[in-house]
Amino acid sequence: MSITQNLATSLSSTSSAFLAPSSFNSRGHVSLPVKSVGICKCIATPEAETGYKTRVTRNPNMGKLQAGYLFPEIARRRSAHLLKYPDAKVISLGIGDTTEPIPEVISDALSKRSQALSTIEGYSGYGAEQGEKPLRSAIASTFYSDLGIEEDDIFVSDGAKCDISRLQIVFGSNVKLAVQDPSYPAYVDSSVIMGQTGLYQKDVEKFANIEYMRCSPENGFFPDLSSISRPDIIFFCSPNNPTGAAATREQLTQLVKYAKDNGSIVIHDSAYAMYISGDNPRSIFEIPGAKEVAIETSSFSKYAGFTGVRLGWTAIPKQLLFSDGFPVARDFNRIVSTCFNGASNISQAGGLACLSPEGLKAMRGVIGFYKENTNIIMETFDSLGFKVYGGKDAPYVWVHFPGQSSWDVFAEILEKTHVVTTPGSGFGPGGEGFVRVSAFGHRENVLEACRRFKQLYN
Amino acid sequence: MSITQNLATSLSSTSSAFLAPSSFNSRGHVSLPVKSVGICKCIATPEAETGYKTRVTRNPNMGKLQAGYLFPEIARRRSAHLLKYPDAKVISLGIGDTTEPIPEVISDALSKRSQALSTIEGYSGYGAEQGEKPLRSAIASTFYSDLGIEEDDIFVSDGAKCDISRLQIVFGSNVKLAVQDPSYPAYVDSSVIMGQTGLYQKDVEKFANIEYMRCSPENGFFPDLSSISRPDIIFFCSPNNPTGAAATREQLTQLVKYAKDNGSIVIHDSAYAMYISGDNPRSIFEIPGAKEVAIETSSFSKYAGFTGVRLGWTAIPKQLLFSDGFPVARDFNRIVSTCFNGASNISQAGGLACLSPEGLKAMRGVIGFYKENTNIIMETFDSLGFKVYGGKDAPYVWVHFPGQSSWDVFAEILEKTHVVTTPGSGFGPGGEGFVRVSAFGHRENVLEACRRFKQLYN
Repeated sequence: MSITQNLATSLSSTSSAFLAPSSFNSRGHVSLPVKSVGICKCIATPEAETGYKTRVTRNPNMGKLQAGYLFPEIARRRSAHLLKYPDAKVISLGIGDTTEPIPEVISDALSKRSQALSTIEGYSGYGAEQGEKPLRSAIASTFYSDLGIEEDDIFVSDGAKCDISRLQIVFGSNVKLAVQDPSYPAYVDSSVIMGQTGLYQKDVEKFANIEYMRCSPENGFFPDLSSISRPDIIFFCSPNNPTGAAATREQLTQLVKYAKDNGSIVIHDSAYAMYISGDNPRSIFEIPGAKEVAIETSSFSKYAGFTGVRLGWTAIPKQLLFSDGFPVARDFNRIVSTCFNGASNISQAGGLACLSPEGLKAMRGVIGFYKENTNIIMETFDSLGFKVYGGKDAPYVWVHFPGQSSWDVFAEILEKTHVVTTPGSGFGPGGEGFVRVSAFGHRENVLEACRRFKQLYN
Repeated sequence: MSITQNLATSLSSTSSAFLAPSSFNSRGHVSLPVKSVGICKCIATPEAETGYKTRVTRNPNMGKLQAGYLFPEIARRRSAHLLKYPDAKVISLGIGDTTEPIPEVISDALSKRSQALSTIEGYSGYGAEQGEKPLRSAIASTFYSDLGIEEDDIFVSDGAKCDISRLQIVFGSNVKLAVQDPSYPAYVDSSVIMGQTGLYQKDVEKFANIEYMRCSPENGFFPDLSSISRPDIIFFCSPNNPTGAAATREQLTQLVKYAKDNGSIVIHDSAYAMYISGDNPRSIFEIPGAKEVAIETSSFSKYAGFTGVRLGWTAIPKQLLFSDGFPVARDFNRIVSTCFNGASNISQAGGLACLSPEGLKAMRGVIGFYKENTNIIMETFDSLGFKVYGGKDAPYVWVHFPGQSSWDVFAEILEKTHVVTTPGSGFGPGGEGFVRVSAFGHRENVLEACRRFKQLYN
């Protein structure tokens, strides 16, 4: 990403930062050449121009959101750092964005479909909103072979983040959510937007009416389910972003049992499942009975480098029913048909190539490369005496800085090493005192970042 | 689209059709070889298998929706027709899907970006959620030159339909909507889903708490604004889908004045603006003062044949404010950052090529081709003595069948000519007695369809 692009991101995400008082503010110690990059624009108060306001009331749920969404905020800080140190070689091990080129067997398919769109035989317009049949079929057979998930249970999407919001639309405002704490911020933020929560409670750094299930080294990063009050929906990310912890078969069995006993629905985010090294389940549907209580959402982003290409899927078994017996998949199908128009046909052609034998081999190669990065990062922090978690089953290393503020550690690492990480508290109050280091990076950058970490902490 | 793909669509959209009692049912006179295509799957009642239901209550807004979303329902009927007449040469002038190959200057850019993703220099991951800066800039300068809409007012999307739902999420459940009647069904359906409406009222074929603004030949397809009760949000599609009517400058000026006087926000859907032949405004921002009351959403779908590639945009001026002075664009920016992850980078490269001088010329060529189709269809129905509307500024011909049911006419045309059209009542009660004929088709298909129309109605 070029500096120019970063500024664009910065410019736009600046506006998010004005949503509510922010608990952090880096502008105090960064001198921004405001005029020359035009950042003023978003800050200008247009009402001063005419004074005209519509009579449409702002959606109160939007007002509940806190500061900016985590990753645009990090992008903003990265840009501010670049303005302060224009010559610094900034290395990003932050937002979890893939860096390695897409294997040619996959990009050839993307390119071929693009070219075919210029021919009468190869042109295709609207596809099925649920995804192209061969891709749905390939996802079912590749990831759910023998698990009883069939082609028509698979909904192809433009990414797991988008499907998380579409699932929230399905459930509406009257459900109660539980999330792992820490976890990927889109679960909580989309819940706030849909009106499922109360206000943000500053003292505990939580929204009212969300169950934050603490996951820490003390409980092996698996929540104490006996201590939570019954949620309707449980977002469960495994391997977890950010802690890198993958639930064991016993833990997932416990989760499915809890859901069944309490009539809850688990949304299992398995976007990192292909990074699992050992025997931990890759899919929640490996657990008997899960089809009656679970949905699984996943993505090609971290497997094939599709973060920019945009392709994912959600599996909703037809056995999953609301309390009145109505299948959840039918409502999701309706949302997909009304609020979405299918993933790009080019991206879908790429997805199909990913699941060919050559594509799978190529994806495993890229994943293996990132896993080597993970080992390098883990060994570095380990050698420096830090307690290090995650890494084994996920491209994220979760480093403990006991007693310190995550944002302070983030800022110090950025200031002194020019390396962008992610502050753990951005994933929930349970992440305080941790920093997430992503293994997505070119090898020389990962090695260089680790050299700088050693200089800083040795 | 192959028969197999149609069956997939049919299979999935079948489930929607069970959402509520349907006022039409074609299965009565179509013999479906159910087992051989596996359509049984969705109809099976899985609860019979174990009897287990979760305790999660179905979102009551989903239960309010009527039958299937229009276009999947048409696809289902088309598939059923193909099963009944496997040898029929079915011609689709129905769902408004583009048919002509994408010009090579554009597909070359799609292909080039695809290939570049396999190189270290050309690889890109997550882009800005708001879209790539050069594309935002090109959209602003191509479509809003001198209109005061700037690069940072443009949000690139995966299509207008998706942005309509994202806009509904921004506004939340407490706003009151007005729509043209007839109009594109996604406005009403997304409003129902967000909880803005009451129940469906069968007697008037409308949802409670939506203002249906009748647009008919009698009022020149522009609503009598003095007769409606104040809405917060007005969806206004011009050129209109399905009537093909484009608002004149005077009419749009009246609309903007109404919005300003009433503090309403207009969402102007201009997805067909490049089809306008004469002097009618291509953008609502041509009207002075519109920036304080309007949003514009648009799409590359019908210009560049991107219905499957997925690319659109929404322009939200920074002058547009909620009643408390908060800019609407900031909340939309937050939604885009939290519920979306940007359009595919490949599609965005294609969009940029569309806006190059060669790309614009190529797009105009394709649009010109479809406009010739429109003329052929208009002349056909005109010669048969029908009252024909639309066509001049849009790729849709709106044919009047006074006193007849739209679905009956649709069914008769399909049964007797094997041509798929769209029943006007699918766009709202004001569309009853009309059928929309789309001009998207290969020339020989349009000519053949017109020959068949002449046989049927001569």
